[in-house]
Amino acid sequence: MSLTFFYSPMSTADITNLVFCELEVPHETIIVDLKKGGSQTPEFLKINPNGKVPVLVHDGVAIWESTAITMYLGETFGVAKGLYPAPGPQRGQAMAWITWANVTLAEAVNRFTRNTMEWVPAEERNPKAGEAGLRATHACLQILNDALAAQQFLVGSYTLADTHVLSLTDWLRHMQIDFTNYPHLNAWHQRCTARPAYKASLAAMGAGA
Amino acid sequence: MSLTFFYSPMSTADITNLVFCELEVPHETIIVDLKKGGSQTPEFLKINPNGKVPVLVHDGVAIWESTAITMYLGETFGVAKGLYPAPGPQRGQAMAWITWANVTLAEAVNRFTRNTMEWVPAEERNPKAGEAGLRATHACLQILNDALAAQQFLVGSYTLADTHVLSLTDWLRHMQIDFTNYPHLNAWHQRCTARPAYKASLAAMGAGA
Repeated sequence: MSLTFFYSPMSTADITNLVFCELEVPHETIIVDLKKGGSQTPEFLKINPNGKVPVLVHDGVAIWESTAITMYLGETFGVAKGLYPAPGPQRGQAMAWITWANVTLAEAVNRFTRNTMEWVPAEERNPKAGEAGLRATHACLQILNDALAAQQFLVGSYTLADTHVLSLTDWLRHMQIDFTNYPHLNAWHQRCTARPAYKASLAAMGAGA
Repeated sequence: MSLTFFYSPMSTADITNLVFCELEVPHETIIVDLKKGGSQTPEFLKINPNGKVPVLVHDGVAIWESTAITMYLGETFGVAKGLYPAPGPQRGQAMAWITWANVTLAEAVNRFTRNTMEWVPAEERNPKAGEAGLRATHACLQILNDALAAQQFLVGSYTLADTHVLSLTDWLRHMQIDFTNYPHLNAWHQRCTARPAYKASLAAMGAGA
């Protein structure tokens, strides 16, 4: 078996980095230098025509989109390690949360960032849309907080659904979004970040930077 | 086994409707009247706190997000019917395309619609961002077109990856986005829409409207 992970720290590939730290599956990591155009070379675009990390190449087959990669690694390596539900409705719930992070939550966050952040051309921004995006982001965080009120983890015991959603909410914390009003979400964050894999992932981020 | 599909025509639940027409799995369909607030009642919010369709309830467990639902129905019912790859890298590719539709393509489309459409408050729109969103949408359609240049379907023979991406691109056609320059995408569209399930899905959309 060959398994290659195309990675760049400070990107959505950090999700996959944390997933790998949880799974401890042998693989090769190739650092892609986004600032030097490493994801836009003809060679890379053959692997992922979207020109983005993360990409996984498993036995010669390229798999992209962090959402798909978490689920794919989960069903391929995670079930035996107790980190992903076996086939059945509970797995469906894990898939729902993983998808929710990159579809519903990310839609709200994108609306916030694309209307407020310096990396977007000023002429494309709209402060009112940014405010609406931030409100929608908080509505999503409230849903996540409420889901964690009566349970320790998103789906039964700790799974890669927690890994994935945690990594995306870490990005929101990094952007200084206010988490004060989400006590259950914050308690879950503490439970998840106390895991050895979390510390290992920070080290890998630093090593790749 | 019990399988319930909460559906509303002219929403992303149309994707799930088409998936069900392909799979022909016995299930109950419950029409949710979005205009009358059917997705915002306390009962519905217990099933999906996001207040959105589609929702699947399989043996009492609620699964939401159209992306997750397609993959869940695929792995649960699609493999035996030849409509979804068995576990392995090819399944990973199907998952990548399904996710890509709702993450990468939808991000571009959302930027276009949220800056140009009447249903968004005028004060939140920005024409320049709408133009950028439309350019990004076309870049995605070009990637899809190129992927279909050398193959009949997205992953080997016809799978639910085609079903899912087709349904989302149908929405773009409905919005009058210009598909003239995508011959391979259009030929694939003809192959997919010639399937009996596609006609059956249109009838189900009409019956539910």
